[in-house]
Amino acid sequence: MATGHTDPHRRQRIVAATLDLIVDEGVAGVSHRKIAARAQVPLGSMTYHFTGIDELLREAFTGFADHIVTVFERHLSGATTPDRAREAVTDLIHTLSEGPGRDLILTQELYILAARHETYRNICRRWMRRSRDLLELHFSPSTARQLDALIEGLTLHRALDDSPPDRELTREAVLRITGATP
Amino acid sequence: MATGHTDPHRRQRIVAATLDLIVDEGVAGVSHRKIAARAQVPLGSMTYHFTGIDELLREAFTGFADHIVTVFERHLSGATTPDRAREAVTDLIHTLSEGPGRDLILTQELYILAARHETYRNICRRWMRRSRDLLELHFSPSTARQLDALIEGLTLHRALDDSPPDRELTREAVLRITGATP
Repeated sequence: MATGHTDPHRRQRIVAATLDLIVDEGVAGVSHRKIAARAQVPLGSMTYHFTGIDELLREAFTGFADHIVTVFERHLSGATTPDRAREAVTDLIHTLSEGPGRDLILTQELYILAARHETYRNICRRWMRRSRDLLELHFSPSTARQLDALIEGLTLHRALDDSPPDRELTREAVLRITGATP
Repeated sequence: MATGHTDPHRRQRIVAATLDLIVDEGVAGVSHRKIAARAQVPLGSMTYHFTGIDELLREAFTGFADHIVTVFERHLSGATTPDRAREAVTDLIHTLSEGPGRDLILTQELYILAARHETYRNICRRWMRRSRDLLELHFSPSTARQLDALIEGLTLHRALDDSPPDRELTREAVLRITGATP
């Protein structure tokens, strides 16, 4: 099948269309037919590139986790001191929680898959491991773990809240959990 | 239709079957037919008791949120001092994260609905409001908000982790976020 070779971006288009479809209809709404239509690829190229929906979902969610790790990296890479890292984490929480609902939906869809299947638990664990590695550039492993949980909870609660708490509260929480309470 | 009157528990059976079905198949898998079969009620009694799937989902998730608030209450009601409240919160996080995956799945399914529809955001907000009210019996509103986010994040990360951190880490995180760092 030459179709796959003519367009090197076809595989990426399929993966991107899969994530878009999950945002709109959930994992349960995913089908070869709908993804092919969104990605504007022939139906046959779906099975050329992927062994099935499961491989496609794994690749899509692995890519999504990589994307969030990149957001972490972008925020934390410039921080040269623990104080700057705390500010960067505060920024990160506000960036993640004030963004479009897309990331919130994809995150929860991944967690539901993870609650049901080991494969997706592994994607989550690798994601958590990489987030904590970035936090451990500035904080102890134990503190990084606590901070990572706080980032998750504050991001989620801010995203769901109609009057999310201000930056002062986020800053105080980050100071406290990193053991730097004034 | 007399069927609805003959069994006063029928409505509750339908709601319970709805949650069970969501755990197994997700919100997307819910249908009148499947719920009726699980609840062992005639298909006709579904429309007798509920105007549609949406009313059923709202009632099911409102009941689920009430259930988790009850778990919060059970843990926190006996605490008479802030120190005991901290221990109670530590217990709560371990109870929630070490329980069956059921609550994790239902929570994430609710958050996905909330990301998409205002009605479910309201159920989440009411739930967060009630959790924080319970925490505010012992802590300031700002601290209660931070602590509630920490409970959410630690519970989720512990549930997804293959080697979840021990009780010492949870205790330290709760001490820190409540401003009681040794």
